[in-house]
Amino acid sequence: MADSSQFEPVESPPGTGRIESFSDGVIAILITIMVLELKLPIDLFHGGHLADILAAFWPRLIVYAMSFLMIAILLINHHMILRAAPHSTTSLYWWNINFLFWMSLIPLSTAVLGNAPLEPAAAAFYGAVLTATAISFTLLHRCAVTIGSKAGKLDHLHLLIIYKDSIFTVLYALSVPLAFVSVYISAAIFVIVAAAYFFPDYIPWPASWRMPGIRKFWR
Amino acid sequence: MADSSQFEPVESPPGTGRIESFSDGVIAILITIMVLELKLPIDLFHGGHLADILAAFWPRLIVYAMSFLMIAILLINHHMILRAAPHSTTSLYWWNINFLFWMSLIPLSTAVLGNAPLEPAAAAFYGAVLTATAISFTLLHRCAVTIGSKAGKLDHLHLLIIYKDSIFTVLYALSVPLAFVSVYISAAIFVIVAAAYFFPDYIPWPASWRMPGIRKFWR
Amino acid sequence: MADSSQFEPVESPPGTGRIESFSDGVIAILITIMVLELKLPIDLFHGGHLADILAAFWPRLIVYAMSFLMIAILLINHHMILRAAPHSTTSLYWWNINFLFWMSLIPLSTAVLGNAPLEPAAAAFYGAVLTATAISFTLLHRCAVTIGSKAGKLDHLHLLIIYKDSIFTVLYALSVPLAFVSVYISAAIFVIVAAAYFFPDYIPWPASWRMPGIRKFWR
Amino acid sequence: MADSSQFEPVESPPGTGRIESFSDGVIAILITIMVLELKLPIDLFHGGHLADILAAFWPRLIVYAMSFLMIAILLINHHMILRAAPHSTTSLYWWNINFLFWMSLIPLSTAVLGNAPLEPAAAAFYGAVLTATAISFTLLHRCAVTIGSKAGKLDHLHLLIIYKDSIFTVLYALSVPLAFVSVYISAAIFVIVAAAYFFPDYIPWPASWRMPGIRKFWR
Repeated sequence: MADSSQFEPVESPPGTGRIESFSDGVIAILITIMVLELKLPIDLFHGGHLADILAAFWPRLIVYAMSFLMIAILLINHHMILRAAPHSTTSLYWWNINFLFWMSLIPLSTAVLGNAPLEPAAAAFYGAVLTATAISFTLLHRCAVTIGSKAGKLDHLHLLIIYKDSIFTVLYALSVPLAFVSVYISAAIFVIVAAAYFFPDYIPWPASWRMPGIRKFWR
Repeated sequence: MADSSQFEPVESPPGTGRIESFSDGVIAILITIMVLELKLPIDLFHGGHLADILAAFWPRLIVYAMSFLMIAILLINHHMILRAAPHSTTSLYWWNINFLFWMSLIPLSTAVLGNAPLEPAAAAFYGAVLTATAISFTLLHRCAVTIGSKAGKLDHLHLLIIYKDSIFTVLYALSVPLAFVSVYISAAIFVIVAAAYFFPDYIPWPASWRMPGIRKFWR
Repeated sequence: MADSSQFEPVESPPGTGRIESFSDGVIAILITIMVLELKLPIDLFHGGHLADILAAFWPRLIVYAMSFLMIAILLINHHMILRAAPHSTTSLYWWNINFLFWMSLIPLSTAVLGNAPLEPAAAAFYGAVLTATAISFTLLHRCAVTIGSKAGKLDHLHLLIIYKDSIFTVLYALSVPLAFVSVYISAAIFVIVAAAYFFPDYIPWPASWRMPGIRKFWR
Repeated sequence: MADSSQFEPVESPPGTGRIESFSDGVIAILITIMVLELKLPIDLFHGGHLADILAAFWPRLIVYAMSFLMIAILLINHHMILRAAPHSTTSLYWWNINFLFWMSLIPLSTAVLGNAPLEPAAAAFYGAVLTATAISFTLLHRCAVTIGSKAGKLDHLHLLIIYKDSIFTVLYALSVPLAFVSVYISAAIFVIVAAAYFFPDYIPWPASWRMPGIRKFWR
């Protein structure tokens, strides 16, 4: 069985490079294909009333921009948490697939909300997809950190980040029932969460959450 | 003809890196574009009856999740079998193209089954595409292993894996005619095969099939 | 907190490789999915009148080719300006996301103009997307150069390029209102700008704008 | 102007790696998105008549498989001819963009022919796209070889390959008018050309065309 020697376990465990590049590819596609759903009724342009065109376009563009921003935030944070894992395991692979699965529904929920921005059910669906994505992100985070800390204990910094992520996950989860009270409450939640991750330094939370070295962490 | 010197055969045969990265790209696209077929009738959201929305969405989501899982399983196994080939050949290239071709039909069969989950013909079509993909996978596996073992003989471990894969390929093939008996039989087959590859350690098959070192093989 | 040591800032700041490869992926997808919008009415081919087919196809093909060319020009210039940044920062990341966002609308505006090539509103929309893309490109350029020159001052060569880019951005901006005078004026602007970047050596502008070493800059 | 030093021409000219990986990405997308056009009328599956389903599916599947094969052949040959260029130039970049442009129309012509396989105009359109792709491939080949041979003369082996490619390009060009005589003549041409490149060793052409070392060239 000398020929199977290339199947022998190697000394150093495999890195996370392949998981990262596959995820990057999937995320690049997700962020791009959403535009395919941004269809405008061609008739609009034959009529030529600018006001009608803008009325049909702005809600979709805003929802599209929001989803584009959320996927970009997830991408940058995905790179940060994978750096916690010194090598890849089968568990990490599957938790990553789980994360990509829920994120892959974002183009669908974006199309639904863009087409019916004032429907409670559409806003609830959009919020539900983001909630599931956020939960799967935290599960992936836990898995990556657990690989990193051999003792299986989460260290203090990661505990803080997971705690912060949990609060916003709960906020996302609240956007689902609250959409049936008013879609504007859900819309406000979507904007607040995006802003909390986009402007981390301007939110009055504990200094330890602000991750001042974020620029150094990300490569 | 000094200028054509860069066309002279090089000493070491080319590696499989380019085949792997091209396949990764195609698979990343396949796993992602399926969501484009997950369209929901927009009218549903204007009506606002949650029950109708869920009734229309769950069958599609389940079929989508099943296909997502199968493609992820194929991806991880694709990396494992290509590691058996120490270098690439034209044959390996073409058997890989053949595998990608049949796998590329999965988004189509997913859309068909998602839209008509209780139609025997749709379930049979879904099963037929998976059967063809599984056969082309085994052909690619044989090719990769044959390159690895110079004598042209498959070694014992790979014979066992190919034997196991053949059993599930036959099960997939049975899902095609059995769909016309009951679509639930076919659905059960799809779930069983996915589970057999997702939870390899919980199936009562010979210990040699369980590939205990799978974490070490995959990089 | 020994386990978080892999989160400590590293000595050398991260490079721009990951931003470039993610952008390449998004641009490869954008340039490709435009063809999905190039749908031809199938009935045409059943009728079989070549003249009708060509009449329906040529405007779309020309608009598609124009967008394909503009994206290719943006790609080559994107690589050039990122070379000005010796390392990546969070700002660079976000200005790049901003640029990709506006560029991601090009397939949408291409579909709109291809379907209604003589409608003023469609030409104005096409011009508006290109204007926003050009502005976001210059903002990204400024950010990349500012990182490069520690003193925060733009050097002379880049000032000249940004000045040149601004002129064509203004020209793009003019195509929006001028479309309502005549769509042919807007069409002329689109052709002129593309030509100005495609044949940089044949335009009678200051020699310093011609970037004689462009072949050496690009890798 | 010390800060612009990173813009100074570097000693060694840039390689072709970036052109290859961008082209690989575009080709991976092209070969994959064709499946999005392979739509089957959902009604078929509700009726359940297998014969109807197969009648609607086979022509599309055959045209899809043909295009899949042609893109795979173009991919393998693209890698081979780019190896002739020791470094990249702006010309090579633009001839490559030109090649990708015409190849990007293959999903469109595939959808047209798959939907109307017996229409002369559809077969002529399919042939015209392949003709334009083949011409642009030879122009890219010439450019790559010219960079390789400093004297600007094509060496003997490449002259032979370009001569062979020209013959099949003429055959493709003939498929356009001949489609109006009979679509089966055009179909025969498509099959013959694909076979000529897929089974290069079984065609009775000069031994020098058979490229016996193809396995060694390709990596």
